Amino acid sequence: MLNLFEIDEWKLIENSFDPAKQEQAESIFSIGNGSFGQRANFEEAYSGKSLQGSYVGGVYYPDKTRVGWWKNGYPEYFAKVLNATNWIGIFIEIDGVKLDLATCQIKSFYRELDMKTSTLTRKFRVQLSNNKEIEVVSVRFCSMHNQEIAAIRYSITPLNFSGNVSFTPYLDGNVTNADSNYDEVFWEADAHRVGDRKGVVSARTKKTNFLTATAMRFSFWENDQLVEIHPNTKAETLYVDNHFEHFLKQGSTYTLKKYVAVTSTINHSEFNTVAAAINEVTDAYRAGFDAIYADHVKAWDEIWKNADVKIEGDKSAQQAIRFNIFHLYQTYTGNNAKLNIGPKGFTGEKYGGATYWDTEAYCIPFFLKTAPQAVSRQLLKYRYNQLDKAIENAAKLGFKDGAALYPMVTMNGEECHNEWEITFEEIHRNGAIAFAIYNYIRHTDDWEYVADFGRHVLVGIARFWAQRFNWSGAKQQFVMLGVTGPNEYENNVNNNWYTNYLAKWCLTFTLEVEEKLNHKSPLLRKGEREEWLNIIDKIYLPKLENTNIFLQQDNFMDKVLMNADELPENERPINQHWSWDRILRSVFIKQADVLQGVYLFEEQFSMDEIKDNFNFYEPKTVHESSLSPCIHSILAAKIGDKERAYKLYLRTSRLDLDDYNREVAEGLHITSMAGTWMSIVEGMAGIRVTESGLEMNPIIPTQWKSYTFNIFYKNQPLTISIGSEITIENKGDKAITLDVYKQSINFNIGEKKVIEMR
Amino acid sequence: MLNLFEIDEWKLIENSFDPAKQEQAESIFSIGNGSFGQRANFEEAYSGKSLQGSYVGGVYYPDKTRVGWWKNGYPEYFAKVLNATNWIGIFIEIDGVKLDLATCQIKSFYRELDMKTSTLTRKFRVQLSNNKEIEVVSVRFCSMHNQEIAAIRYSITPLNFSGNVSFTPYLDGNVTNADSNYDEVFWEADAHRVGDRKGVVSARTKKTNFLTATAMRFSFWENDQLVEIHPNTKAETLYVDNHFEHFLKQGSTYTLKKYVAVTSTINHSEFNTVAAAINEVTDAYRAGFDAIYADHVKAWDEIWKNADVKIEGDKSAQQAIRFNIFHLYQTYTGNNAKLNIGPKGFTGEKYGGATYWDTEAYCIPFFLKTAPQAVSRQLLKYRYNQLDKAIENAAKLGFKDGAALYPMVTMNGEECHNEWEITFEEIHRNGAIAFAIYNYIRHTDDWEYVADFGRHVLVGIARFWAQRFNWSGAKQQFVMLGVTGPNEYENNVNNNWYTNYLAKWCLTFTLEVEEKLNHKSPLLRKGEREEWLNIIDKIYLPKLENTNIFLQQDNFMDKVLMNADELPENERPINQHWSWDRILRSVFIKQADVLQGVYLFEEQFSMDEIKDNFNFYEPKTVHESSLSPCIHSILAAKIGDKERAYKLYLRTSRLDLDDYNREVAEGLHITSMAGTWMSIVEGMAGIRVTESGLEMNPIIPTQWKSYTFNIFYKNQPLTISIGSEITIENKGDKAITLDVYKQSINFNIGEKKVIEMR
Repeated sequence: MLNLFEIDEWKLIENSFDPAKQEQAESIFSIGNGSFGQRANFEEAYSGKSLQGSYVGGVYYPDKTRVGWWKNGYPEYFAKVLNATNWIGIFIEIDGVKLDLATCQIKSFYRELDMKTSTLTRKFRVQLSNNKEIEVVSVRFCSMHNQEIAAIRYSITPLNFSGNVSFTPYLDGNVTNADSNYDEVFWEADAHRVGDRKGVVSARTKKTNFLTATAMRFSFWENDQLVEIHPNTKAETLYVDNHFEHFLKQGSTYTLKKYVAVTSTINHSEFNTVAAAINEVTDAYRAGFDAIYADHVKAWDEIWKNADVKIEGDKSAQQAIRFNIFHLYQTYTGNNAKLNIGPKGFTGEKYGGATYWDTEAYCIPFFLKTAPQAVSRQLLKYRYNQLDKAIENAAKLGFKDGAALYPMVTMNGEECHNEWEITFEEIHRNGAIAFAIYNYIRHTDDWEYVADFGRHVLVGIARFWAQRFNWSGAKQQFVMLGVTGPNEYENNVNNNWYTNYLAKWCLTFTLEVEEKLNHKSPLLRKGEREEWLNIIDKIYLPKLENTNIFLQQDNFMDKVLMNADELPENERPINQHWSWDRILRSVFIKQADVLQGVYLFEEQFSMDEIKDNFNFYEPKTVHESSLSPCIHSILAAKIGDKERAYKLYLRTSRLDLDDYNREVAEGLHITSMAGTWMSIVEGMAGIRVTESGLEMNPIIPTQWKSYTFNIFYKNQPLTISIGSEITIENKGDKAITLDVYKQSINFNIGEKKVIEMR
Repeated sequence: MLNLFEIDEWKLIENSFDPAKQEQAESIFSIGNGSFGQRANFEEAYSGKSLQGSYVGGVYYPDKTRVGWWKNGYPEYFAKVLNATNWIGIFIEIDGVKLDLATCQIKSFYRELDMKTSTLTRKFRVQLSNNKEIEVVSVRFCSMHNQEIAAIRYSITPLNFSGNVSFTPYLDGNVTNADSNYDEVFWEADAHRVGDRKGVVSARTKKTNFLTATAMRFSFWENDQLVEIHPNTKAETLYVDNHFEHFLKQGSTYTLKKYVAVTSTINHSEFNTVAAAINEVTDAYRAGFDAIYADHVKAWDEIWKNADVKIEGDKSAQQAIRFNIFHLYQTYTGNNAKLNIGPKGFTGEKYGGATYWDTEAYCIPFFLKTAPQAVSRQLLKYRYNQLDKAIENAAKLGFKDGAALYPMVTMNGEECHNEWEITFEEIHRNGAIAFAIYNYIRHTDDWEYVADFGRHVLVGIARFWAQRFNWSGAKQQFVMLGVTGPNEYENNVNNNWYTNYLAKWCLTFTLEVEEKLNHKSPLLRKGEREEWLNIIDKIYLPKLENTNIFLQQDNFMDKVLMNADELPENERPINQHWSWDRILRSVFIKQADVLQGVYLFEEQFSMDEIKDNFNFYEPKTVHESSLSPCIHSILAAKIGDKERAYKLYLRTSRLDLDDYNREVAEGLHITSMAGTWMSIVEGMAGIRVTESGLEMNPIIPTQWKSYTFNIFYKNQPLTISIGSEITIENKGDKAITLDVYKQSINFNIGEKKVIEMR
């Protein structure tokens, strides 16, 4: 555990500067607003190790992925999240010496990310090689109110001198990705214009032709007085700046306020994109820093009102859960039907593409309970909009008659992942998309969505499963060969229990939905229902004889059975130390697989089955996916193993903050952050929304005094507080009934009740 | 079947020019001499579709193979065979119009590759856009006598005019590979010098720093008279030429004789490489075309003396077998310990790396019988020299104590393939290397090689197997999980019968060798022998209950059982029409897998077992590897299915000539050509060299009158002719005994006997 940064309930704080931690800090202190975002790179020059990252939602480059050995059916491209125009930059020179934290002497350094307001602040004192000492305070934010706006307030105070200081605020689109095959440049210059205290750079992605425009304006202040300046301007390909010198008096504070707008053809027409950036930045400039900041803070208040989780008695857990919620909402706001939730959000460039099954398996449960239903509906609709492409995708793999296989990774509905064992075989993702529809109905009763859109998705997915099983003469049952389960540490296995079970459920649920809706244009073809019923009836589900253990796959018991705690510490994580074949042969499980199924379909299993499978698989699980510990934590809570639930919770909640997997430098694990929230709400509080209603079976870790959160259920907001007793308040406009410890309790509008804790 | 070219016993002939066939023809008419070689590109300019290829043995570029999803243990690079300096080029301009077969009117065209002498000839008449008609005759060869020399004789006769013609012989190193990720250039310029009727270009490969030098000299003749010319010279980066104009008289013939030397740091020191090229080309120039050509022809006569197979009564089969033998010897001569046999030889750039298990499984059996034992020994020694790297390679995958895993693909002993299911899992290649040693001893009795070198290789390989098995609690036997067999249409399977069987044999054979040699420094550690014996005793070999069928892998019988002839024609080859997962799930077999084991260890199985397995697997085999049909052909002959043996033989022998798999444009399947020869000698003639001696059980296809070939057995050359009767002649210097139809027959020195055909 690295404990990288200070612990505070609402803030991330660094009290000193460690260049070795800079890339990690850049990830952790990232800010964004659902539309664009960036790593916590410095405004001034920095010659130390850094991963520069400024990202615009939905903008990508279809990178070539030619490998020596192409497989038929591989996608044409791998979508790359692109490092875009750097808009934070302000070069500073003090009497001819460049300000650069890598080369000057640092007297003090403070960095803070206030999660309540998504405000990134730095305050530092440095002595330059010419012995000049200054203090710098920089504050910046990406507006949550106007999601195309950001601003920086950058102040310098000369401490031991008066003298000339030069300021060069700039926009620089001459950027590349750290992750590129041959140092390719992914941007083509569009236009650049510069004026007095303003500039704009627009760039177009190669091949995909996304146009993005980045505009800036700025003002300069001595203490609180606006200073008139006459900067020199410079404009080059993909670059503009303003340059001016000013005589700074010792003890006075000089502030540059830089306003930025970032627009793209995701939201604007080709014709308007540049103009929109100029208009937006002009409006922001005229409104002023304080006014736009106030709007921004207000927007965040609205989010926290629903989404906050308060934990009393455990500052570290409190900080961690807010960190997770904070980054989820920085990444996705539900405002834009074209966007989804990239695994790294706006914090890094790793993982091409924006949409994984993470969205359905982890993020939708989070947004279903913390945001109005429109947000989750937007995410479901995203998949509906891509149904045609999913059908095309399945057709490429030889499936027919409208069978749909959603891609593993996508930007626009097209598959953009190319490892056969994932792309073609990790097909359980299709089931997660169906399950999300089911979950959405349970939460919202929005059957209209299903009738209009969801059923088409369900039927496409079910058709895929019906074709994907084959009859085994040897087993006299339907089998599913050659799949990869959620445990990606087994590939191309036969009869992954989770996938078979989920597929069976999808077929059953789709038939139920079609029957229930009794739509005037039925989707199922003649005989299709009977065919599916026959398959459902004869699906093979591997099980260890004479036990409750569902077998992860057919040949699981041929492996050498070991527990993860028998692994030498210096061989973990195994994915950084073992070759792939060794991992595949081993019994070690990357993330919940059988247990993912036990979690999703909990009501269908006895407590003994849940316990036995948990006790069989948990010790074999190495949790090398960020998506893993939360599911285990929830199940541990379910079977009453409070200590283990808490231990696993800590692992998920501080995964990035403490950099467990030593990869935070590359960016944060945004989607798995939803799992942390699930560990509290579904794990600790034992909240379940089932077809029969809302249940809760709360426990509380001994380390905590109380925890409080809000959830939406059937569009009604509830506030739930669990400590020495349970307090529930119905804040909605309808009465509501829920089960606490299997006891049905009614809440009138506005009613608050206190229930005994068990 | 395309029947691309004319059928002739010794020649490949094209009688007309079809631009659509040009890339196929460039592959098929390729020439080489074991050291360098080239596709049959044209000397003069050609603006039509063409794959330019000039290759220098052993010279490669370690291409980056960054893919989105790296696996721990993947190699750093993928070795790329490089298109090198073009040395054939001669630009021609007739009164200002460029000679280019893509743009002029072709009156007649003849192309011939004489396989007896490895001579490529073209003769054509064309009319240019200015109505000038010429006849061109070009002859070229890569000397088999001096393997750094080549020469071209290029003659022009003006047919309907007298006029000015310009000649520009050149060397051009500004070349790229057709197969590159981002059009990278793999060469760096070294030096270029040009002089009167001479020039040299040297280039260095990026990263690997191989230096190659290509030098030219030339002379110009009117009919048989040397003409004095004074060319202009040009030298640019990686390019040199000489340019001269001459007045050509109608009806006279003008000839440019271009001599070339190609050297590299594979054979020369860095210091000498360029000088060697200059010296070699000067010697060749002084000796003259006819003299160096005569030496070249003599060298080929020597090869054919041993290697030729004569088939009477079937011109097509005759041409085909010579085509295969010819290309094998163009690719590998056994002269250089640093070289091996690339799957495409000098005919294309596909497949990085030079050495595959093809060498051991196919080429060594061919060279063992057609060349003195030194050639096969060189190939074995190549692997011995790379043993350290094989041990390193195994260590990377977690194996220890000197376990060796030879790479799937290599240039210098390092793995350079990066598909996990192949690189890490297609490990049966290790067994093929052990088997080659066994086979070598059976043919040569050279136990000295084994005592000095081979045993180290065997022990390293056996150690790998001992560690690769694991004990299955479920089966109470040793199992091998996660492998890919020779049938690459199944990946990551458990208990591939072939691999398990081969591994068991390797362990057993290595123990036998160590026992037999009883070396004063034993290689086995204390307890190692007992450990291996225990494993050998308990290896699981999957079998279909109550039958003779050895199961390809554990779950084979869960597949939908179908025969290849049930596949729609438009879905074949399936690897061009089906996605990879579909192929993997299907029952279809790419190439001999269980049958490869039945073939290798034939003596260990009953005729019923051989028949039953053949009849079970042959119909499921799609033969989409060039390595497949020959093994099936041999087994078909073995079980007496003469018709099928012949059909399968045809498929292997004319695979490239008739472009069955529609990929000849990319180059020829050099290594599988050895399989064709095996189909005749092991299949038709039923020749086996076992521990007990030489056996033969000949059959003859009804389509043939007779066939005759030579083999080496214990260093003794034998000539065997099979027709209406069997004629065997001992041409060696020792008496020899062999079994014909299980009848032991003795041959004194020089003795020739006639035996009745059954």
